[in-house]
Amino acid sequence: MTPTVGIALLGTKFMGKAHSNAWGQAARFFDLPCKPKLATVVGRNQQELDAFAERWGWEQTAPQWQDVVADDAIAIVDIATPNDVHAEPAVAALAAGKHVVCEKPLAGTLADARRMRDAAVSSSGQSFVWFNYRRCPAIALAHRMVRDGRLGRIYHVRASYLQSWGGPDTPLLWRFQKAHAGSGAHGDLNAHIVDLARFLTGDEIVEVHGAIEKTFVTERTIPGTDAVGTSDVDDCVSFLASLAGGATASFEATRLAVGHLNRNCIEINGADGSLAFDFEDMNTLRFCDASDPASERGWRRIVCTAAEHPYMAAWWPDAHLIGYEHGFTNMAADVLRVLSGAQAEVPLPTFVDAYETQRVLEAALIAARERRAVELTEVP
Amino acid sequence: MTPTVGIALLGTKFMGKAHSNAWGQAARFFDLPCKPKLATVVGRNQQELDAFAERWGWEQTAPQWQDVVADDAIAIVDIATPNDVHAEPAVAALAAGKHVVCEKPLAGTLADARRMRDAAVSSSGQSFVWFNYRRCPAIALAHRMVRDGRLGRIYHVRASYLQSWGGPDTPLLWRFQKAHAGSGAHGDLNAHIVDLARFLTGDEIVEVHGAIEKTFVTERTIPGTDAVGTSDVDDCVSFLASLAGGATASFEATRLAVGHLNRNCIEINGADGSLAFDFEDMNTLRFCDASDPASERGWRRIVCTAAEHPYMAAWWPDAHLIGYEHGFTNMAADVLRVLSGAQAEVPLPTFVDAYETQRVLEAALIAARERRAVELTEVP
Amino acid sequence: MTPTVGIALLGTKFMGKAHSNAWGQAARFFDLPCKPKLATVVGRNQQELDAFAERWGWEQTAPQWQDVVADDAIAIVDIATPNDVHAEPAVAALAAGKHVVCEKPLAGTLADARRMRDAAVSSSGQSFVWFNYRRCPAIALAHRMVRDGRLGRIYHVRASYLQSWGGPDTPLLWRFQKAHAGSGAHGDLNAHIVDLARFLTGDEIVEVHGAIEKTFVTERTIPGTDAVGTSDVDDCVSFLASLAGGATASFEATRLAVGHLNRNCIEINGADGSLAFDFEDMNTLRFCDASDPASERGWRRIVCTAAEHPYMAAWWPDAHLIGYEHGFTNMAADVLRVLSGAQAEVPLPTFVDAYETQRVLEAALIAARERRAVELTEVP
Amino acid sequence: MTPTVGIALLGTKFMGKAHSNAWGQAARFFDLPCKPKLATVVGRNQQELDAFAERWGWEQTAPQWQDVVADDAIAIVDIATPNDVHAEPAVAALAAGKHVVCEKPLAGTLADARRMRDAAVSSSGQSFVWFNYRRCPAIALAHRMVRDGRLGRIYHVRASYLQSWGGPDTPLLWRFQKAHAGSGAHGDLNAHIVDLARFLTGDEIVEVHGAIEKTFVTERTIPGTDAVGTSDVDDCVSFLASLAGGATASFEATRLAVGHLNRNCIEINGADGSLAFDFEDMNTLRFCDASDPASERGWRRIVCTAAEHPYMAAWWPDAHLIGYEHGFTNMAADVLRVLSGAQAEVPLPTFVDAYETQRVLEAALIAARERRAVELTEVP
Repeated sequence: MTPTVGIALLGTKFMGKAHSNAWGQAARFFDLPCKPKLATVVGRNQQELDAFAERWGWEQTAPQWQDVVADDAIAIVDIATPNDVHAEPAVAALAAGKHVVCEKPLAGTLADARRMRDAAVSSSGQSFVWFNYRRCPAIALAHRMVRDGRLGRIYHVRASYLQSWGGPDTPLLWRFQKAHAGSGAHGDLNAHIVDLARFLTGDEIVEVHGAIEKTFVTERTIPGTDAVGTSDVDDCVSFLASLAGGATASFEATRLAVGHLNRNCIEINGADGSLAFDFEDMNTLRFCDASDPASERGWRRIVCTAAEHPYMAAWWPDAHLIGYEHGFTNMAADVLRVLSGAQAEVPLPTFVDAYETQRVLEAALIAARERRAVELTEVP
Repeated sequence: MTPTVGIALLGTKFMGKAHSNAWGQAARFFDLPCKPKLATVVGRNQQELDAFAERWGWEQTAPQWQDVVADDAIAIVDIATPNDVHAEPAVAALAAGKHVVCEKPLAGTLADARRMRDAAVSSSGQSFVWFNYRRCPAIALAHRMVRDGRLGRIYHVRASYLQSWGGPDTPLLWRFQKAHAGSGAHGDLNAHIVDLARFLTGDEIVEVHGAIEKTFVTERTIPGTDAVGTSDVDDCVSFLASLAGGATASFEATRLAVGHLNRNCIEINGADGSLAFDFEDMNTLRFCDASDPASERGWRRIVCTAAEHPYMAAWWPDAHLIGYEHGFTNMAADVLRVLSGAQAEVPLPTFVDAYETQRVLEAALIAARERRAVELTEVP
Repeated sequence: MTPTVGIALLGTKFMGKAHSNAWGQAARFFDLPCKPKLATVVGRNQQELDAFAERWGWEQTAPQWQDVVADDAIAIVDIATPNDVHAEPAVAALAAGKHVVCEKPLAGTLADARRMRDAAVSSSGQSFVWFNYRRCPAIALAHRMVRDGRLGRIYHVRASYLQSWGGPDTPLLWRFQKAHAGSGAHGDLNAHIVDLARFLTGDEIVEVHGAIEKTFVTERTIPGTDAVGTSDVDDCVSFLASLAGGATASFEATRLAVGHLNRNCIEINGADGSLAFDFEDMNTLRFCDASDPASERGWRRIVCTAAEHPYMAAWWPDAHLIGYEHGFTNMAADVLRVLSGAQAEVPLPTFVDAYETQRVLEAALIAARERRAVELTEVP
Repeated sequence: MTPTVGIALLGTKFMGKAHSNAWGQAARFFDLPCKPKLATVVGRNQQELDAFAERWGWEQTAPQWQDVVADDAIAIVDIATPNDVHAEPAVAALAAGKHVVCEKPLAGTLADARRMRDAAVSSSGQSFVWFNYRRCPAIALAHRMVRDGRLGRIYHVRASYLQSWGGPDTPLLWRFQKAHAGSGAHGDLNAHIVDLARFLTGDEIVEVHGAIEKTFVTERTIPGTDAVGTSDVDDCVSFLASLAGGATASFEATRLAVGHLNRNCIEINGADGSLAFDFEDMNTLRFCDASDPASERGWRRIVCTAAEHPYMAAWWPDAHLIGYEHGFTNMAADVLRVLSGAQAEVPLPTFVDAYETQRVLEAALIAARERRAVELTEVP
């Protein structure tokens, strides 16, 4: 009989919903070696919590995360709270031998992130980070193609994450407050594309050559009031970097790019080919094979909806598109596989891995503030 | 307290899975006036049926559809069986006062379809057909824009549904057998785009001017054997038509268009603007507004992921793509709303409506065989 | 020393300008076996004619085409007049042993076209038709790829030529008058795509299965007046056809498709691959190779700007786009090559060839009027 | 009567051909206040020079540039030689009161560029630089729209110029030799996009925040030999910058991006809208208007082929694409207009203007080498 794995969820907002859906759909669409049990959801507002639990199938609720850390029925603690509320429960859960699956960025501060990494290293539990885009089939295919040597020597990585919801009319959500979010577009968006760059190339960033951090909108309305508060996070951060293997890399995150909704883009140029991904066309990977004859060479638009593509056999017959939330479901399936001793479709990011991403983000901030190049060895 | 509606599902293959997911996700993502109860799933192979029921949350199973038609706990009979097994259970269920939600095309033959329409007209139950594409947000937006008069007088409708899975290597599935499927690409694909053309324009087809029906691949391997059987359905059907309001229309369905996976396309040109949809980029509607100044006029690529777009408020925050299955979920939500006396986001197709689509398909077949134009009044 | 070929041009409007440019640029960009001499331009308004001649480098002018037909210094008569003024000068010039290069469609009526074909067959001069799109590098590449067997058995041809300039505000130009133009979108646009379909497949249309011919705008302002006159040509013509080899084909021409400016599109689906061309992205050919592995298969966007692509070595170093007029220049170069006994890059359309296209257009008109399928053998 | 302006051309390679074509086509397609006279072409190889002169219509040849500087019949000296041969003839021609139109970048070194600027400032002649992309109709339209305030406050400029011809198989052309070219992709490509950024925003770059300069391919075959020589220019340069008005900007030039042929891209995000241009789709400008209602907002693909678009009335009737060389022709027309006291369609870059671009390029090189941010005030 299929064993059952008890899960506790912290957080019931956007990410709480995404994770709840992921655990449920993973069990319905994938053939898994274990069955996720949506055991406990944790939150402060009992009424909202009850409604959430009923809607998503959580068996019980708890008022604080300490309850689930102490609960033997819980094997996985899933953290979907704001960035400043990652470290404490994660460290405690890992210390208690739980597996932890934490939202990205790993933490709002590098110090928090380091504590989390250290806790993961010394725990008997495993750690994972919800870098969901790794598990878009198109990205997973790109990962496989780079591993298979289709690009040859890598010259350039070009990554940007462009959004447009951060104009002056948007109120002062927690994401605009440094105390809660740690940073703005940087931690929210650059975290994703730095993870993707490292994941896809299998290479590490060794130097940040320069960076810009900018806050254009400094005042926002406090939600539910007429008062105005300070928006003290970046609206955009751009930086240039080098990889250990010699490739150049550029990263840009912004919430002020009218016309772009959720344009998470990454492109890799190698001597033998190039790959390009754009999340606004998420089912597609573009590939140019330099070995095609000159008269027939061009970008191929590979629609990644065949059973041959990563994850797709679990979903629908060939040729049916999937959406945003499926990356989370694919990840939930992989986490459950790995915890059962099976293989993930593509590697899962651990806290150790996510900490490296956090160091890169930190180096970019130093470069922006000190107006100079920063070697990664300068960041602890 | 929210009332509950008992549902029975016939069929556990591709569409059985799609419908099961739709009922479940509708309850999780939408705020509905009633709660769908996945009561009974019907099928012949008990072992498969049990596994299916457990995976998708069906409370019990039944070996034949007569069981659920006789069951007072069932309010909705959902038919996801092959085309030749639509009429009998649908007619019986409607006669018993059930609501019926049937897969498209309405039936494999016009005679069956007519029986179903007649049963629907005289039943106290309501009838619906799973023309899922109506409920892509981009299509629902197009519907709203046409209603709002954004296109002006309509000149042209251009619809095609191109797939590529029907080559000679594909085995003799039921979809290639006339006895089960009724037709090939025609009923499977043209049914969708005729429905979309009628739905979007709000106009009716009055004449088919000519048609081509062609079977290129006449022999296919019988699955699980080395034997070869006859593929006796069309591989493609194209036809030209006129709408009552004067617009011209073209329709093409094929399974032999290499490079196209699931390219369900419809474009409408009006005096004041044009709209274009392509299911391979399903979250997007393209719109050209003829009233924009000449120097700034062009196709707008509207990514339909904002709360302002139909259905999207139920899913994720702005700017997150949805996929194929969401059309079914959106429709399940609308069915549940309508059965509770609330409003569907956009009109639902009834059996009466789907019968009109079936008449158009029939007219096209007559035109192809008799090599002449056919007025719709010639089709009973 | 390079021999010189004397050219006479009839017509100084849009096409007169395009042809003048073509002869001049051909000599400048291509290495040709002979040198075009822009000898005489023919027209009625002497003042305009003088200005035109000076601007484009025509050495002299003449008031009527009879002058150049009688002129021994003229080897090529280039006809760029309205459709009803093609036959008379063409037949006379061919009778006089001149080479004739005529604008498309071959003529406004089938009877005229037949006279021209007969004259071409019995003349010592050669005949050519300005089907300029054959000489877009992307189309010429497609021709080469089909010849090389990259598509395998051809299943479908899908061609449309969509424009939007024919709304009710456009005045009563000669193109809207049957007496001058013969037809509307049909002869103007369908002529091009029927030529392309025949050229690319190398196959002939044997049956028209049905057609629609429609005039939505029947009255237009007479230019320079307040008066209104009758627009008696079609605004759109669509038809379905079969090729001798079994492929299905569809054609649509319209001037009422808001959003489309000059969208001359053709796509061919074969068992082994597909090709697609869109003149609004004219430097590009899209190709899907069915033999690519499933996980890497997709439409390739081949930008046809390399020296390996047809015609491009004559223009600029790799990677520089060309425009509309270059198709004419490429054709002028090919005409001069062929007249010198050299090879054209891809075959040139003769009057015999263009007459076949005209028969197809005629069959479509019969099908539309008689509301039935028409075999090509029915058209003389 | 239309006055005539005598032109001398230095250089007969790629750019010599492009400029020759531009002067000739400008006279044929535009109605100009003066007539360009292709008087003298200067070059060293007399045989090649004679052939070139005959092909392009240059009336005479000269062996060295001093001849044309001393020639009273010459009003315009057009410099199309390698970057290290710009300064000397430009300075001499300006000193002689000639107008000078020089290829970009202004010079291979900042010192040369400064001499040229100084000469221009003190000359009675006017100076222009062939930044041809300013005169793509789509770019000129973007310029007009920014001036009209359609973008509001500008947040971001994102520019890249990606090519792929610089792999290890490409031989050691002059463009790979610092002594001749000054730099690699930087001067060749970043010069264009820095010019475009300044031109479109009307704003100046005040700081370079960091830069990467990299040479991946250090050895190349010497053309016509088996020997290998040193490729001592950059293959790519990326840098980040700020504009005076606060906007962030990024620039990247590379010759090692497989799949990109001539992808000169620039995008501008403002509070009220965004504009995007890609030279591989050069007839198109993409625009997103933030004031469109949320449900209909999206990127508009404006095909810039209407008479309402800059320069297009001179070419063909609406809806006909132009190509690479037309930017040069549009510029030739504007130079002739300005020299006649008329207005250019959009502003022409002078040596003073191009010198500012050169300073930005220099600041980027300093930033790359010194691994730090550089304020523009640091560059003389």
